[in-house]
Amino acid sequence: MNSQDEIRFGMVKNRHKETFEQAIYDGKADEKMVPLCKFVSKTKNYFTSSSCSGRILLLSLDKGERKKVSAFHRKWHRKVKFKEVREALNEKTAYSVWLKQEAFILHIGAGDLKHAEKLLLVMTKSGIKRGGIIVAKPGKFIVELQGTQGLAVPVKSENEILVSDDYLKTLVDIANEKFDKNDTALKRFEKVARAELK
Amino acid sequence: MNSQDEIRFGMVKNRHKETFEQAIYDGKADEKMVPLCKFVSKTKNYFTSSSCSGRILLLSLDKGERKKVSAFHRKWHRKVKFKEVREALNEKTAYSVWLKQEAFILHIGAGDLKHAEKLLLVMTKSGIKRGGIIVAKPGKFIVELQGTQGLAVPVKSENEILVSDDYLKTLVDIANEKFDKNDTALKRFEKVARAELK
Repeated sequence: MNSQDEIRFGMVKNRHKETFEQAIYDGKADEKMVPLCKFVSKTKNYFTSSSCSGRILLLSLDKGERKKVSAFHRKWHRKVKFKEVREALNEKTAYSVWLKQEAFILHIGAGDLKHAEKLLLVMTKSGIKRGGIIVAKPGKFIVELQGTQGLAVPVKSENEILVSDDYLKTLVDIANEKFDKNDTALKRFEKVARAELK
Repeated sequence: MNSQDEIRFGMVKNRHKETFEQAIYDGKADEKMVPLCKFVSKTKNYFTSSSCSGRILLLSLDKGERKKVSAFHRKWHRKVKFKEVREALNEKTAYSVWLKQEAFILHIGAGDLKHAEKLLLVMTKSGIKRGGIIVAKPGKFIVELQGTQGLAVPVKSENEILVSDDYLKTLVDIANEKFDKNDTALKRFEKVARAELK
């Protein structure tokens, strides 16, 4: 890095540190991400940007299923119970509702390509298969990492519930299983990151 | 690029061109990808690596749902009919079966960071939200681009079909709709790529 890039990186790293600390203070930080983010924040060469540890959600969609009008009917950063999912579906909703389990998504920044590449190595070493450098600017490289556990099932359409209670129970069980597997993958990444990132 | 990196890039680009031409010759190329791949192959600065235009599939999984033993019970690079999906489910399968619609995945290579960044710009400009640089080596940068349409539904477990015919019909309709939307997104990318990549 030349000195101009170093200054830029320092500013970006600091700004993200402040945003993260503010989020903790406001109780808005994703709790499972806090130890990893704190560690990264203390390294010399890396910072974390917006991240999510994984979630189970009921997504509302309009008729065209355009993302821009979709909304969270419910969003949980934990395992769920059949009853709460079923009750949420009984409420008035948009045109259609999907039950989804989404894997973690991490954004980790570095100051140059060399350190961004190191993140790709840590990713591979910890068994994460999806990720890459999504921003590549002097002093600011961002690597996005994603887990691969996933469930995406339409469960309601035109205010009609499409699935039986038995099948919904199966879906909830699978979503919870995948939620746990996602946690394990995230912990494995954290372990490798702590050993490798400086 | 220094001359050594240029030589490396030239070799990598040539090798991928030969692999692609062999795949066309063997009738193994993904037909919808051929025009885009041919165009990229003719640019000075880019090449394509393994890519898929999107698909609908029945995925077999063992009890642990470990990826390594999962297999395609069926795989279609086209829209599907309820009847063929239903009949495929009647056959003997592994522990569980998922119906999935997967978006396109493209791998485009460049020789240096500057040209890889240009790919990220083309990606953004064409409305693709998922992608990044997954390989960053001197003379060999690979950008992975993915569509976001997706459906992932468990439909069979322990040789028992979990879904009613009515619901399976709905799933097939949704998979086909998403397949079309994925095609549209891929065409939009191709249009921008033809205008921007040299």
